Amino acid sequence: MAGIHPTAIVAPDSMLGDDVEVGPYAIVHPNVRVGAGSCIGAYCELGLPTPLAKSPVLEIGADSIIRSHSVIYAGSQAGAGLTTGHYVTIRENSAIGEGFQLGNRGDVQGDCTIGNFTRTHADVHIGKKSIIGNGVWLFPEVLLTNDPTPPSDELVGVTIGNYAVVAAKVLLMPGAHIGDDSVIAAGSVVSGNIPMGKIAKGNPAKVVCDASILRMHSSPSKRAYPWRRRFHRGYPEELVREWVKEFGD
Amino acid sequence: MAGIHPTAIVAPDSMLGDDVEVGPYAIVHPNVRVGAGSCIGAYCELGLPTPLAKSPVLEIGADSIIRSHSVIYAGSQAGAGLTTGHYVTIRENSAIGEGFQLGNRGDVQGDCTIGNFTRTHADVHIGKKSIIGNGVWLFPEVLLTNDPTPPSDELVGVTIGNYAVVAAKVLLMPGAHIGDDSVIAAGSVVSGNIPMGKIAKGNPAKVVCDASILRMHSSPSKRAYPWRRRFHRGYPEELVREWVKEFGD
Amino acid sequence: MAGIHPTAIVAPDSMLGDDVEVGPYAIVHPNVRVGAGSCIGAYCELGLPTPLAKSPVLEIGADSIIRSHSVIYAGSQAGAGLTTGHYVTIRENSAIGEGFQLGNRGDVQGDCTIGNFTRTHADVHIGKKSIIGNGVWLFPEVLLTNDPTPPSDELVGVTIGNYAVVAAKVLLMPGAHIGDDSVIAAGSVVSGNIPMGKIAKGNPAKVVCDASILRMHSSPSKRAYPWRRRFHRGYPEELVREWVKEFGD
Repeated sequence: MAGIHPTAIVAPDSMLGDDVEVGPYAIVHPNVRVGAGSCIGAYCELGLPTPLAKSPVLEIGADSIIRSHSVIYAGSQAGAGLTTGHYVTIRENSAIGEGFQLGNRGDVQGDCTIGNFTRTHADVHIGKKSIIGNGVWLFPEVLLTNDPTPPSDELVGVTIGNYAVVAAKVLLMPGAHIGDDSVIAAGSVVSGNIPMGKIAKGNPAKVVCDASILRMHSSPSKRAYPWRRRFHRGYPEELVREWVKEFGD
Repeated sequence: MAGIHPTAIVAPDSMLGDDVEVGPYAIVHPNVRVGAGSCIGAYCELGLPTPLAKSPVLEIGADSIIRSHSVIYAGSQAGAGLTTGHYVTIRENSAIGEGFQLGNRGDVQGDCTIGNFTRTHADVHIGKKSIIGNGVWLFPEVLLTNDPTPPSDELVGVTIGNYAVVAAKVLLMPGAHIGDDSVIAAGSVVSGNIPMGKIAKGNPAKVVCDASILRMHSSPSKRAYPWRRRFHRGYPEELVREWVKEFGD
Repeated sequence: MAGIHPTAIVAPDSMLGDDVEVGPYAIVHPNVRVGAGSCIGAYCELGLPTPLAKSPVLEIGADSIIRSHSVIYAGSQAGAGLTTGHYVTIRENSAIGEGFQLGNRGDVQGDCTIGNFTRTHADVHIGKKSIIGNGVWLFPEVLLTNDPTPPSDELVGVTIGNYAVVAAKVLLMPGAHIGDDSVIAAGSVVSGNIPMGKIAKGNPAKVVCDASILRMHSSPSKRAYPWRRRFHRGYPEELVREWVKEFGD
């Protein structure tokens, strides 16, 4: 399946880098730029135009993997190493860093800012105007909302600090702010501000303790958080080297 | 992409109105009627037959937009201006009014009644036998259930009154009844009856106050509910005129 | 649409049984075996290779129905009568029994074991390393998690016993164990162990009573659980005969 599959519909003025693969039945609209070595799955539609896009261009960095049945609109840009699951959607006017992973059915609704090496599991819904830092983890069915008095056009996005972890089925209310390195327990509902480096839990979520207190269930002598002291799979070597230095492991 | 894309598979005895666009790789089965000016996205399948359908016909009104990767079964009917996100499914035997908007991955499971100008955000799941009024808003991950003793065939649908608002991640239990103009806070679980014009919250949801008390976060002198006193984007002019008259704004 | 649609892309060394139908634009990769009488919907992709698969083969039993837009990876195997909704994904290294039904957007994330005649409604997410028995029911938006200290590679799957029922929007925490014939109420969050034959409810879920106490809402003289005493639709005759004998109905 190397190269552009004969059934793919690729606009002549799209710009695909070297060795980009485009799968069967995929559609690439005009003004799409995809970096070298990327792979676009079957039934994907890239660069869907919308009047809401501030730019007609969709830019996806090198070595990206867009899995099948995904839809990415014009007007957003993602750094190298974008990796998506199946059925993801990314709307317009979002600025996404390097190494972003978006799980199956992930939905970035537009006007979002997402840092480097942030990862989401399946069914994560990132509402408009969300601001997400570097190295953040969002687990299945996390929902970032934005409208304090729905419906309205007065949206207030969620902000999530670097390396924060938001566990499964958490609901983040409009304007919620999660501090760097904090951990939100599964099933919580978060309004307002969670300071740096804490564990918060419940509905409404309250700070329980410092995140650094938590130990690995399998080896209680090992601190679990900040997670980058112990979990390095898939991150760039130079980043991991920094992390190792930071935690003296 | 105007007209019927050459890769689309359109049954000869389907009835497409003037200027209907059918995107690449879309499938239109027999007995599908789509009103003039509508646009059917790529990879959609319309009119999928099922033995559960009481009628072999799928009818979609004029000026509708069905976004890519959506599946609509035979046996339902939707008024003019149906607008869907991507990956939506609508099953058989549902009667849907004008101007219905169904967000990404929305699922109407069949045997439902939905009024005019009702709108849902992403990941809304409308269980069988739901009855939803006019101008209702359902926010992300709202779930309408129907089986008090699962599994069974003794389904009891949810009923939602006109202009009600159900915020994100709300679970509506079988037989729940939301009164006109009421607002259900995000993350709530609702059983039984919520009267008209109230705000309800929690698990189990309880009435907190009259919805008319709530103010806009940005301008506390402005009442937030009923929302049609202040939010008019995308509704027909004559409807908005009525609303303005009703609230004397 | 009988047979293989001319637009389907079917690898020559895939093995399709007699009378298998493959819908428009579907893709069947090498090493896929599909049993006789099965039906693969439009835009499905079967046998997607992955380095994580222990075997290159995907095996699907006879008389299966894979609805449109679904993705099943290489390396898993499912018994006869697999029935899926639309947009489902099944990852590698899972062993699935006969008669498994997976609702719309269902996601089996890999390394799972699932028994016979288990059924899920829409939006059920089965995390890696889950072990699910026979005749289990999982209702919409049930989520099986697996990581006690996310992110990590030290996953601890959920275990669900035979004929258990997990109602809508339940969150099952890593390592949760649901006993045979138990019923988890909608919206609950379950950690630890729920013994056999109980109803559990809440966050955290606690045992409320024996499940056998619950009656049908429509006929209070009729016990609701274990459900197989009263709900037989779609199960094989010999199984139903056993159930009838077991409960003396």
